Parts: sequence; structure tokens; C-alpha cells
Amino acid sequence: MKVIKFGGSSVASAEQIKKIKDIIVSDADRRIVVVSAPGKRFPEDTKVTDLLIDLASQVLNGNKGVSHVFNQIVNRYKEIATDLAIDEDIVSEISHSLQELIEGDTTEESYFMDALKASGEDNSAKLIAAYLRSEGIPARYISPKEAGLYLSDEPGNAQILPESYQNLFALRDYDEIIIFPGFFGFTKTGKLVTFSRGGSDVTGAILANGVKATLYENFTDVDCIYSASPSIIEKPVPIEDLTYTEMRELSYSGFSVVHDEALYPAFAEGIPVVVKNTNNPTAPGTKITRTRSESEYPLAGVASKSGFASIYISKYMMNREVGFINRVLDVLEDYNISLEHIVSGIDDIDIVFKEEMITAKQFQDLLVEIKVKTAADVVEKRDNLCLVMLVGQNMRHKIGLMARATKALGEAQVNIDMINQGSSENSIMFGINENEEERAVAAIYKEFFESDK
Amino acid sequence: MKVIKFGGSSVASAEQIKKIKDIIVSDADRRIVVVSAPGKRFPEDTKVTDLLIDLASQVLNGNKGVSHVFNQIVNRYKEIATDLAIDEDIVSEISHSLQELIEGDTTEESYFMDALKASGEDNSAKLIAAYLRSEGIPARYISPKEAGLYLSDEPGNAQILPESYQNLFALRDYDEIIIFPGFFGFTKTGKLVTFSRGGSDVTGAILANGVKATLYENFTDVDCIYSASPSIIEKPVPIEDLTYTEMRELSYSGFSVVHDEALYPAFAEGIPVVVKNTNNPTAPGTKITRTRSESEYPLAGVASKSGFASIYISKYMMNREVGFINRVLDVLEDYNISLEHIVSGIDDIDIVFKEEMITAKQFQDLLVEIKVKTAADVVEKRDNLCLVMLVGQNMRHKIGLMARATKALGEAQVNIDMINQGSSENSIMFGINENEEERAVAAIYKEFFESDK
Repeated sequence: MKVIKFGGSSVASAEQIKKIKDIIVSDADRRIVVVSAPGKRFPEDTKVTDLLIDLASQVLNGNKGVSHVFNQIVNRYKEIATDLAIDEDIVSEISHSLQELIEGDTTEESYFMDALKASGEDNSAKLIAAYLRSEGIPARYISPKEAGLYLSDEPGNAQILPESYQNLFALRDYDEIIIFPGFFGFTKTGKLVTFSRGGSDVTGAILANGVKATLYENFTDVDCIYSASPSIIEKPVPIEDLTYTEMRELSYSGFSVVHDEALYPAFAEGIPVVVKNTNNPTAPGTKITRTRSESEYPLAGVASKSGFASIYISKYMMNREVGFINRVLDVLEDYNISLEHIVSGIDDIDIVFKEEMITAKQFQDLLVEIKVKTAADVVEKRDNLCLVMLVGQNMRHKIGLMARATKALGEAQVNIDMINQGSSENSIMFGINENEEERAVAAIYKEFFESDK
Repeated sequence: MKVIKFGGSSVASAEQIKKIKDIIVSDADRRIVVVSAPGKRFPEDTKVTDLLIDLASQVLNGNKGVSHVFNQIVNRYKEIATDLAIDEDIVSEISHSLQELIEGDTTEESYFMDALKASGEDNSAKLIAAYLRSEGIPARYISPKEAGLYLSDEPGNAQILPESYQNLFALRDYDEIIIFPGFFGFTKTGKLVTFSRGGSDVTGAILANGVKATLYENFTDVDCIYSASPSIIEKPVPIEDLTYTEMRELSYSGFSVVHDEALYPAFAEGIPVVVKNTNNPTAPGTKITRTRSESEYPLAGVASKSGFASIYISKYMMNREVGFINRVLDVLEDYNISLEHIVSGIDDIDIVFKEEMITAKQFQDLLVEIKVKTAADVVEKRDNLCLVMLVGQNMRHKIGLMARATKALGEAQVNIDMINQGSSENSIMFGINENEEERAVAAIYKEFFESDK
């Protein structure tokens, strides 16, 4: 039994939904289908979820003239239903339920917002189930409430409650193909709440775990995960196989096709995940598993991410002061900063975090506070830091690989501010200036994917 | 005005002390001489300081039969005095003062021990001053008490009190050459206390600071500091010039000719330090200053040190947990462990410290406590860690240097467990297994000192 998930662009139009149907019927193991809300059909288009957020905000602001955006939303579904030649009843039903939602209780704004946002996925699932049935395919919409998908009571940031998994196991028993809306679930008291991110990716991973699927197929609008960002490298080498750990390292460092945290429920159960393209379903995609065999390239990929800042602290004899780093981290904790990396020398330390965690004013205060609390000789900030991550299994034990990487960066005149090679077997991190990001990625890519391997 | 210091081997015999005389008289600027207690004359010999510790321990243990070791000590001075053909009165004086010491107050054991240890330097200074006078050289023994060298009340681990520096400035005014015993000073209440380490090195550095010397000459028994340990590399390249910072990094990592912490009072005042050889005083030695010009080698030196251990901790999503590392460091602080290095990845962290800081039993308890307090997925110890440090100014900005280093290690089949290149401009650290220490140092040395530069 496979769980299969389609993202927003895969359900954006009738044409796309027809592709979904073909994909479902081409493999009898594809029994559970998780769908998103209709996404963009063309670059300037607006996602249904964004229209819903707009609608909810207007209602919460007491704006009565919401018919324009309301109609925009209903028309998106109507257009799809018309093009799919299915019964218009489903559109009346969607319109009616949306009307009920905006007339609902607005006293708890976050629940109201979550309910409206989630309707995008919910109506998408109902419509697609209706379409499949109209094509003679036994299909059944199942709501997260019916399935027992319980979440923590944190609107917009809900977490799965472990008991859900055994409830979901019962989804194996249906004869029909199940069409399940992504992105949301219910609290134990029956309130609708949504996940923080990853939308329907996380629902798919949870269902794959719950029904003990043999495979979780995550359909997107790209053929696979590439070994480098296509915005930097033209036609980068596709990644055929990745381990979960590699996926995590790449996601962390900017690969955003699918977010590793969203896939975690599948990873935890050891269920393989494959990333495929709705528009090109015969392409092999990228398969993510616990272990993989060696590929022809020494790296799986190279990722990069900007927007980091660091604090550099030096104090003579720092390394003989028990608790020095502790005092620094206490200050950071007071500012609620979660650390990304620490690299310490004999008498100095670099602490890296996301620039967005702190305002410029707070940053100044923080430097002063660290200086006062530690009596350090030097406390300096550095911003515009980019982390370049080379990812590949057992990388640390590949003798000579670090030499090739640093040589390639050197020849590209990239100045390495920081190297982080700790015990992680699967990655090496370089800290560089943001301005050198593209040059660095290109140099690493050329060295490991274009030269002799 | 130069301050000049002689170590134990330089005052171990009459022959050595004659060399000291020649060194002093050959430069009229050499006005203040700090001396150690007589050291070893041959490899199996015993240092006077060790004899004194033995004597003190025996007295403290209530052992009355101490005449053997007492006589050994007095005879060392007597032999020197005889060979220098100076008045035997000085020997009687030494014998008498030592007798007074062992009959002194033993209720506070640490002060008793300090007083006996310090007598080695004190008698050395008195004897050398007498010898110089017998040779017609105006010389004067000055005690730390007379000079106002005040220390904190921490026997065996005393720190300089800042007010001492202005007292010491008056040492500029003497017409005679001052012979000053190293290793000790006095508390404000008049108790004799010794420094923790570095012995007379630290006294010399304090005096150099106090009198605002133009140079602090530190005489040892080697011609200079070498670019690698002579126990690993045969005839390593001598280091002509070092910065204070480079010296600190090399000392930290195992270069023990002089200890950087001992030299700190001179560094703090910007006074140049030169390391020279009593047995070959015309050799240029190694000069240590705040800044230096570039040398012909890209590195100043390569040092290595074993005896480190690390704790590896990994936890999925560690980097999103504010305060995670804090909780780990709190545990380490409870065990009074001072950290040497931290290297953190996305979801894992390596913490390096000296193995000697903790017993095997404590290590096991520590791992369990970290596991419990952090709910980490993995908490593992690793021991037999060796840190190899490549030191050279502005190293971080020398593009290609890291590539050469890692390539050299790779070709020597050295597995790199850890690389630490943070903001420190002056060093790159590799963590390797102790068993590979010699191979690693040899490979780095060959690459940077023997190949084309």
C-alpha cells in the first residue's frame, strides 16, 4: 500500500487533476491520496490558501464587503469542476460550507483563521473524490476527524498526538481509494487546527506511518531533487538516492523541494519516500531511505543558505575559565536565540544563528551584555554570513575530499571564514560571505560533479 | 635595560654559572638577572627543587631522619661554590637558612612547602651574586620582599598583585647588576608563596614589565623554538620570529620550551621576549613580539598534543531547541570540566576537554546525566584524541593552505575526525587519533617546510 501526496500545483487546474487520476490508476497500490489546496496555475496567479487567508483577515477586521474574494475562491473550484465536467452540486456545497465558515465564531481568531485556511485542502479533497467517482473510480473523501487524526491544541502550529497513528491504521481497510485533505487535523475537543509548515507533506508522512505504507510518494512539480540549486547551476545532476540524514542536511541548508521535518513521520517508521513530478510521472524521481548504496559521485549534493549572523568572542585564557561559554549561552537564551553552530578555538568562540532571530537594536544590546557578563577582550558581530553545506554519506572518512573542496574554493577566490567538521559523518560546512555564495556553490559543483570523479 | 632569566640547567653547575657570567658581562644592558634553582646536570640527576619537595614532605610526615636529603641539597650548592672558588661562608649561610626552614612552623602545610621549594631559587640567587662579586662584577642579591613583589594569598598558585609593578619599577635605580630569585613572592601579610607554574619564567616576565625593559631574554638549554617537535622531526627549521598569539597557540598545543602563560606579563606590556640558549648564546634564538614580518614559510610551526577526550551528542532537531547546548554545559560545569573546544553541527555537537579532568567512572556518570537531562538520541564518549595545531599569522586568509594541509594528511592516511577553523586568524586545528600523531605532524611538516614553499 502506497500513500501518495499531491502539492498545490498538482491540483491547480482540471488539467492537473486529470494527471493525478492517471497517476492513481496506473498503480493499484496507490490507495491513499493526500491533496493540497489549488496552487498557482501561472506565476502571477494566487494560491487558494492565500485567498482564504485574505478572506479570513477581512472578516476578522469586520469588513463586510468580502464577496469579491469569496467569489474568487468559489470560482477557482467552479472552474475546475466545469472543466472536469462533474456535477455542479459539489460547487454549491463548497460555496455553502465556506459561507458557513465566515459566519462562524470569530472570538478566537487563530481557530477561525485555521478553519478557513484548511478549507482549501478540504474542498480540494471533496472535489477530487467526486471527479474520480464521475470517472468510475471508487473513491471516497475522508476527513481527518473521521480518521481520528488528532493534533495538539496549538492553532497554526499543531503537532501530531501519538495515539492518532493507531486510528489511522484503520484507513487500510477501505475498498475505495481514499482522498484525504492535507494540512490539518482536530484537537481532542474537536477544534480544527493546522500544521505549522509543510502543509500536506506532513499529512502524507503521518498517513504513510499510520497505515505502514510500503512507500510514500510525494508529487511535486520538479522531476527530482537536484545535486545543486538550479538557480545557481544549469541542469544540475539529479539525485537518485538519498538517505534521510542527507535529506535533513540538504533541507537545513536551503533545499526546499520538500522539507525534511515534514517528512519526519515517514522517516521515523523507516518508510521510503520518493519525490516525483506530477507533470512527468515516469521520471524516476529521488528516493529517500535509511541507507543507500554508493553513487558515482562523492557528494550527494551541495546546498547553501544565507541570512546567518555570528558573534565572535575572544578572551585571553578563555579555555581555562570553567563556565565561560555557559555564561555566553545564558545571555543568548535570555534573548530566545536558538543557536545554529558553535565553533570554539583556544581563546575564542564563534556563535552562529539566524539573523532574523534578532533586531539590529537587540543585537547591539546583546553584544554589550555579553561583554559585561564575560569581561571578554573582544565581542564582535558579523553578519551576511552564508553557510555552504557539502552533503554525502560517510563524507568525513573520504580522505582527500576536504582537500579537493578547499582547493576548489581557493581557486574560485572564495574566502573561508569558518569550517565546521565535527562528528557528523554526512556533511562539511563552510562559512563564507553571502556575496560569494554563487561562486562557492559553482566551484564545489564543478569539482565534484563535473570533473573526473 | 634588559631583564634576563636563566633556567635550571643554566645554573646546575659551576661550569654553567660561568657561562651565565660571560653572558651577563657581554652586554651592558643586561641589568636584571632572574635565576632558577639548580636543575639536572645529566639525565639521571635530580633537580634541587625535587629534593626540596622531598625534604618538605618528609618533615611534614614527621620523619626525623632527613639528614640525607638535607645534605644532598647543601652539597649541590657546596660543590658549585667550590668549583667557582668562592668563599665557603655562602654555603654555611645556605645550610643555616635551610635548617631554620625545616624547623619552622609546619601547621600550615602549604606555606611550609612553598617556603622550602622557594629556597632553591633563593639560595641560587645568593650564590650567583656572591660569585659575580668574587669576579669583580658589581652584583646584588635582591629578594622579592625587598623589591615589593606581592602575590595573592594562594600557596602554590599565587597571582601577581597589580600594585607590585610600580614597586618593581624602582629596580631600575640600582647601580649593581641585580640577581633576583624566580618562582616566588610574598603576600601582603608577609607570607612566602610560589607561582603555580613557569617558575622563574613568570618572575622574569613580571620584572620585565615592572622595569619597562626593552627586552626580556629567556635563557634555556635549546637554541630556539623549532617549527616542529624535535622528538618527531629530525632537525626541524628554527623559528626566528613569532607573534605572542602564535606563541600562545603553539604553547597550548604542546610546545613547552617556554610557557606562554608565564610570559604573559611581558606580552601584556608589549615587551619583546627572546628565547636563547645558555650553551650557545650567539645563536639568534627565537624572538616573540606583538607583530612580525612574513617569513619564508607559510606556517610558523606545527604542534600536537594528546590526552584529549570528547563527548558526541546528537538529537534530531537539536538546533531548534533553545538552550540545548546550555543544558549540556551546565552538566559539564557541575563536574568542574573546563572545555577546550566545541564544534557543533545541525543536530549534533562535539565537546572536547582534557582527559585528565575526569575519572573513567565520572565520565560514565557524566554521559548518563547528559542523556537524562537533554533526552538526546546519542551520547557517546571518544578518547585518545590528539589535537594537531597548524600555527601561523593570518593563516585563515591564506587561500589554498587548508587544501594543502588536508591533502597532506590524506596522503599520509591520517583520518581527520574534527577540523576547527573558527575566527582565530592564526591557527587551524585537526582532531585525530593519538596513534596517528607522529604521522600527522610529519606529513604537515613535510608539506610546509620541506616541499616548495
